Amino acid sequence: MRLSDGVESGVHVCVLLATLPNGAALPAAKLAEYHGVPAAYLAKHLQALAGADVLRTVKGARGGYRLARPADEITVLDVVEAIDGGESAFRCSEIRRRGPLAMPAREYTKVCGIHHVFTRADEVWRAELARTTITDLLMGVLRDVPRAALEKGARWLQDSAR
Amino acid sequence: MRLSDGVESGVHVCVLLATLPNGAALPAAKLAEYHGVPAAYLAKHLQALAGADVLRTVKGARGGYRLARPADEITVLDVVEAIDGGESAFRCSEIRRRGPLAMPAREYTKVCGIHHVFTRADEVWRAELARTTITDLLMGVLRDVPRAALEKGARWLQDSAR
Repeated sequence: MRLSDGVESGVHVCVLLATLPNGAALPAAKLAEYHGVPAAYLAKHLQALAGADVLRTVKGARGGYRLARPADEITVLDVVEAIDGGESAFRCSEIRRRGPLAMPAREYTKVCGIHHVFTRADEVWRAELARTTITDLLMGVLRDVPRAALEKGARWLQDSAR
Repeated sequence: MRLSDGVESGVHVCVLLATLPNGAALPAAKLAEYHGVPAAYLAKHLQALAGADVLRTVKGARGGYRLARPADEITVLDVVEAIDGGESAFRCSEIRRRGPLAMPAREYTKVCGIHHVFTRADEVWRAELARTTITDLLMGVLRDVPRAALEKGARWLQDSAR
């Protein structure tokens, strides 16, 4: 089981954008440069995040991407569902209805117990991801990252943000 | 995010094998027939389950597959990890170490906070799947499946089990 690898850069992008002053934006090329990923690769994921109303595009000479709402109202789950989709990891093909034991469809009134276990596991996974916001992650970065890196980051942002 | 679709048939196979009397086995071809899946497709997953000590192969004319241990000692997680692997759904490529802010490796003493959130979510997902055993699933089937299907199943097993 594998999340789309765009999820990693998507969350990093949101944490970086959470440091911008109100109304400021970063162009896609700068976001790619900051994260050391190819611009074309990142563009696809930025568009998915904008489509899911996690990011907003800002038009014009000072345009780019910013968060669509306050960072404490965006959860890790929002980013995951924007990029990786909201479907359960388990695809039930109703195996119980196949083979020599198959019964008429009307006999299957309950969800298959196997399907049910995976639905529950999916729910606890999503609930865990929904507990952490972009603000929480940013607080962690500010606490854990070496001061020299923070200063380097602040200078880079001053040169790059619009 | 998508589990290997072999997981579904793998769990169904274990539930069916849990109904066999002690020491009995079902050949791979019968397991495929019962579940309405192609034999070659199922064979790969049966081998993975045997390799992970969830199933055991029984040699000889009355051979086939049986559970490697009592059904209440096999969890859904055991089947998932046998077929889909035990790796986290999130692959951290250490994005924080790239781009213009990269610091010397010695500066990164803690796990990236983003990585940490996904590790926790992965743990609750696995814990949830570890709470349900093959016996639990079998009890659910016996409770929920129409009596006519159970009788059909019992006849099929008597003709098929070795």
